[in-house]
Amino acid sequence: MALTSEKIQFTLKLLVHYERQEAGPLSSPFAYSVKLAECGSKHLALYLAVREAITEGRLAPGERLPSTRKLASLYGLSRGSASVAYEMLTAEGFVQAGIGQGTFVAGNDVIGGRPDWADSTGTLKKESVPQAAPALTKWAHRLLAAEADRESMLPERVAKLSEATVSFVPEGVGSEWFPWSEWKAEVASQWKLLGETGRVGLEKEGCHELRQAIAERLRKERGIACEARQVVITSGSMQAIVLLTQLLLEEGKTAIVENPCYTGIRLAVRATGARAVAQPVDASGITIDDWDAGLLFVTPTRHFPTGVVLSYERRRALLTWAARHNAWIIEDDYDSDFRWGGRPIEPLKSLDKEGRVVYVGTFSRSMGAGVRIGYAVLPDELIVPFSVAKGLYDPHPTGIAEQQALASWMSGGGYDRYMRRMRRTFGKLERKLRSGIEEMIGQLFEVVPSDAGLHLYAKWKLDDNSYELLVKECAARGVMWKDGAVYSCAEEAGNVQPPGKSAIFGFAHLNETSIDKGVLTIRDAAARLGWLNIDHAQGGTAHA
Amino acid sequence: MALTSEKIQFTLKLLVHYERQEAGPLSSPFAYSVKLAECGSKHLALYLAVREAITEGRLAPGERLPSTRKLASLYGLSRGSASVAYEMLTAEGFVQAGIGQGTFVAGNDVIGGRPDWADSTGTLKKESVPQAAPALTKWAHRLLAAEADRESMLPERVAKLSEATVSFVPEGVGSEWFPWSEWKAEVASQWKLLGETGRVGLEKEGCHELRQAIAERLRKERGIACEARQVVITSGSMQAIVLLTQLLLEEGKTAIVENPCYTGIRLAVRATGARAVAQPVDASGITIDDWDAGLLFVTPTRHFPTGVVLSYERRRALLTWAARHNAWIIEDDYDSDFRWGGRPIEPLKSLDKEGRVVYVGTFSRSMGAGVRIGYAVLPDELIVPFSVAKGLYDPHPTGIAEQQALASWMSGGGYDRYMRRMRRTFGKLERKLRSGIEEMIGQLFEVVPSDAGLHLYAKWKLDDNSYELLVKECAARGVMWKDGAVYSCAEEAGNVQPPGKSAIFGFAHLNETSIDKGVLTIRDAAARLGWLNIDHAQGGTAHA
Repeated sequence: MALTSEKIQFTLKLLVHYERQEAGPLSSPFAYSVKLAECGSKHLALYLAVREAITEGRLAPGERLPSTRKLASLYGLSRGSASVAYEMLTAEGFVQAGIGQGTFVAGNDVIGGRPDWADSTGTLKKESVPQAAPALTKWAHRLLAAEADRESMLPERVAKLSEATVSFVPEGVGSEWFPWSEWKAEVASQWKLLGETGRVGLEKEGCHELRQAIAERLRKERGIACEARQVVITSGSMQAIVLLTQLLLEEGKTAIVENPCYTGIRLAVRATGARAVAQPVDASGITIDDWDAGLLFVTPTRHFPTGVVLSYERRRALLTWAARHNAWIIEDDYDSDFRWGGRPIEPLKSLDKEGRVVYVGTFSRSMGAGVRIGYAVLPDELIVPFSVAKGLYDPHPTGIAEQQALASWMSGGGYDRYMRRMRRTFGKLERKLRSGIEEMIGQLFEVVPSDAGLHLYAKWKLDDNSYELLVKECAARGVMWKDGAVYSCAEEAGNVQPPGKSAIFGFAHLNETSIDKGVLTIRDAAARLGWLNIDHAQGGTAHA
Repeated sequence: MALTSEKIQFTLKLLVHYERQEAGPLSSPFAYSVKLAECGSKHLALYLAVREAITEGRLAPGERLPSTRKLASLYGLSRGSASVAYEMLTAEGFVQAGIGQGTFVAGNDVIGGRPDWADSTGTLKKESVPQAAPALTKWAHRLLAAEADRESMLPERVAKLSEATVSFVPEGVGSEWFPWSEWKAEVASQWKLLGETGRVGLEKEGCHELRQAIAERLRKERGIACEARQVVITSGSMQAIVLLTQLLLEEGKTAIVENPCYTGIRLAVRATGARAVAQPVDASGITIDDWDAGLLFVTPTRHFPTGVVLSYERRRALLTWAARHNAWIIEDDYDSDFRWGGRPIEPLKSLDKEGRVVYVGTFSRSMGAGVRIGYAVLPDELIVPFSVAKGLYDPHPTGIAEQQALASWMSGGGYDRYMRRMRRTFGKLERKLRSGIEEMIGQLFEVVPSDAGLHLYAKWKLDDNSYELLVKECAARGVMWKDGAVYSCAEEAGNVQPPGKSAIFGFAHLNETSIDKGVLTIRDAAARLGWLNIDHAQGGTAHA
C-alpha cells in the first residue's frame, strides 16, 4: 500500500478529527511524512512524529491517542509497527497505557515530581531564564588563550601547504622512505593474532612486549638503566608531556622551559595555570640559573628546534639544581634516533641517579606522525601516578595491534635495520640541504650546527622586512618552510625582543631532487629581490 | 684480534700508568669490558666506559686522555672507533679537544657558569640536599585518592578471573560474536590505502568520513540533528568525559551524578577538584531536584548500571533545570545500540533545543573494548574548546586506519547489519539469562527490568552476609559476576547506607551453553548453602 504525501496529510486531518471530536487544524499534529522521508523506517517515523507533537505542545498531557488498529489503517502501517512506536514512547515516558483504556499523552501525575520553577508542561518559567552561555572552566580559558597566542604567532599564511611545489615545512618521515609494506605486514599479522585469540590487551600501561622492547633498546642504545615496568606507552609524546605536567606542576608555580621551545610544552604549562619561565639557549644548550621552580623541560640530546647539544657540565648542573630544589626534570628526546655518522648521544636520564628525570620518547618522529606511539620512562615513585593518570583518559590502551606490531618489529631487528638505513638516507639528505643552503643562499641564512634530527634550523642574516619579502616571493613560486618565530617564547622571557627571524627546513619527507629544486627556487627568489649576484638568463650559478 | 677480560684488565692498568705517570689503581678507571659485554659495540663501550670514569670522578677535570692511536692499540679497536667515541664525548661536553694538544676531561672553564651552590665538580653541596621526594600536584593527589577509593570498593578477590569456568563479569562483545574477519578486512584495506597514499589523517578532530558517518547515523537512528563538524572522535568515551569535565566543571563547584554511577565519571569529577553530589535513581531514572550545580552527568537511555529508562517528564525537567541554572548536561549513551525488539530510544540530546547537552557515545561497547573509538556530539560553542582540549593530549588522531575502516564499514552498511544480527543474538542471550535467573535463583536475585544493553542488573534479596557466602561458594566452583557495590556513591550521597547488595551479569561474551552452566552452578551453590529446596541427587529442578 503506497503512501503519498497528500494521502498522509488527508488521513492525518481525519485522524485528528476522529480523536479530538472536533475539526482538525490545517497543519497536522504529526509530521509523519517528513519523518518517514528522513529516516525511512515506518515505526520510527511514527514514533518521531508523535514525540514531536507532544514535545511541541500540539498534543497536550492527558490527551488520548489513536489505537494501534486505527493508526495502522490510517497510515498504511502494520499494527506491529504501530505497537513498536507506542512501546518506544511508553518506555521513554512520553505516553502512558492503561489496560483496556487506550494510550494517553503522559501528564504531570507520572512518576517523579515537577520542580516548582517549571510550569505545568515542565517548561521553564520565562522569568528565570539566565541569558549567559554556560561557563567554561579556568582551565578551558587558559588553554584557549594559550592556543590563541600560539595561532597568533603563526606567520600570515601566504600560500596553501597543499599547493606548494616544494615544502620544507617538517612532516616527519615521508612515505617514500618508510618501509610501509614491511610495517603493514607486521600490523596485519598482529591483527590476525588479535582475531584468533580474542586478545585485546587490556593493560592500561600498554602492551607488555613493547614496554620490554623499549626498555631493552634504551638500555643497549642509550645507556638508560630501566625496566619494562617503568615504561608506560602513550598515544604520542605530547600525551606524556601533558599528563606529567598535570602530575608535577601546581597551578601558580613556575616551570622552566627552553627559549625557543616546542609549542606543546608551553600549552601544557599554561593550561595547568603555572608560569613558564623561558631560559635562553646558547651554543651549549639551555643556560643555567638557580631557578625557584619545581619542574624543568629540556631537550638535551638535540635542542628543539635549534639542534644544539646540551654540554656535559650543564647536564650535571641541571641534576644538581633539581636535587637542590627537589624538582623534576622532563627530558624530551624527540628525534635523537636520527644521528648522522653513528654517534648516539646518551640522554640526561642516564646520568640521573636520584630518579628526578622523566624520559619521554616517541616513534611518531621516526616512523611518521600516523604512528601514535610514545612513551615515558618513569622514576619508581611516578609509575603508579602516571599509570593512573593515563588510565583516567584511556582506561584501555589505544592502537594495541600497532603496539604489538612495533614490539615484534623491534625484537625481530626490523626497527634497527630501518634506523640504520635511515641514518644513511637522511644523513645524505641533510648534507645535501646543508650544503645547498650554505652554497646557494649562505648570504641569507646561517645554518645552526647540529648532527641529528630531521630538520635544519637556520638564522636569518638580514633584517625582518627582507625576510617577509623572501617568504612572499618564494610562496609565489611554490616554496615554503616553517617560520621559527612560533617557537620563541617572548612572553615567558619577559617580553625581550625576539632574536631575529629564523627558519626551519624539514627534509625527511623530501628527496635530493626536491631539496635541490627548493633551494634553487629560494636562490632565484632572492636574486629577483636583488640580493644575490646571479645571472638569471643562465639559470644562475654565481653568488656574491 | 680477540679481547679477553684478563687482557683488558692488564692493558687498562698499563694505560692508566702510562697516562698518569704513576702506578695505576687496582681497579681500572674504564669499565670497558663490562660495557662491551653489555652493548656489543666497541665504540659505544669505550664511550660509556670513559663517560662513567668521568662522572664517577675517577678521571678529574683537566686530566689528559690517551690519544686515539694509543686507545686503538691498547683496546684492539680501530682508530676510527676510538675517534667516534671521543667525538661523542666531545659533542656532549664530557671532554674537550685542542688542536695538536690532545683530549682532556672537561673542566669548569667550559661554556656556561657553575652555580654557587655546586662544588667544583658540579656536584651538589651536601648541606643543601632536601630530603623530601619531589611533590605531586593537588590534581595528582585527588586523582590518586579517588582511584584508591575506587579500588577499596572492589570486593575481595576470591578467585582469579582467568581461572573462572563461567565469568559473568562484563567483557563487552565476545570474539565469538564479533565479525572479526569482516572487520579485519576493512582495517587491512584502510592500512593499504594509508600506505599507497601516504595519508595519515592529521585532523585532530578525527577522520572526516567517520564524523560524517556518525552524524548521519545519529540523525537517522537516534533523532539527533547534528552535523559532522559537531562530532569529535576520541580514543573512547572516557576520554570525552574527562575532557568535558575539565572544560565544564570548575574546581570547588558541584556536579550531579546518578547513584549508582559509572566509576569513570566519579574519577573525572574528583580529579577536577569539584564535588560530586549523587542523586538516587528510581524506576524512572534519576530523581529531580533544583540542584545548585553547573554540570550533570546522566545515562537517560539506559541508566548505568541498573538499566532503567529516564522518563520523558524527567527529561524535560532536566533540560528545564539546565536552562534555569545555566548548566551543562553530559549524556553518556554507552550501549544503547543494543536494544531488544527493535525499539531504539531517542537520546536526551534530541530534545535539546538550547545546546546544553553534550552527547557522548562509543563503539567500544558494540565492537569490543579493543576498538578505541568514542565521540562527543557538541553544541556549537563547545566545538572549538573541545577540539583544542583533545588536541592538547593528542595533536594527531589515534588509530586513523581503524577510524577510516569504521567509516567505510558504516557507510557500506556493514555496521548496521552487524547491529541487526547482534540484536537478535544478544536478545536471545539476554532472555536466556533473565529467565535462568528468575527460574533458578529467583529467590536470591531480582532482575531490574530493562530492555537494552549487554548486562543484567540484579538486586540481592537476602542479607549482606549471605551474599558474601554465595560469592565464595560460587568462586570455588569457578563462577563469578561483577559486584554492584563498586558503582554505589555512598560518599557523594552523604554516606547514606548503600541500598543492599547487587550483582551485574554480563552476557555478551558468553553463549547459551555457558549461561546455562553459570546459572545452574549458582543454583547448586545456593542449594549447598541450604537456601533452595533442590533434590541434589537428581541435579535439581524444583525450587521453593
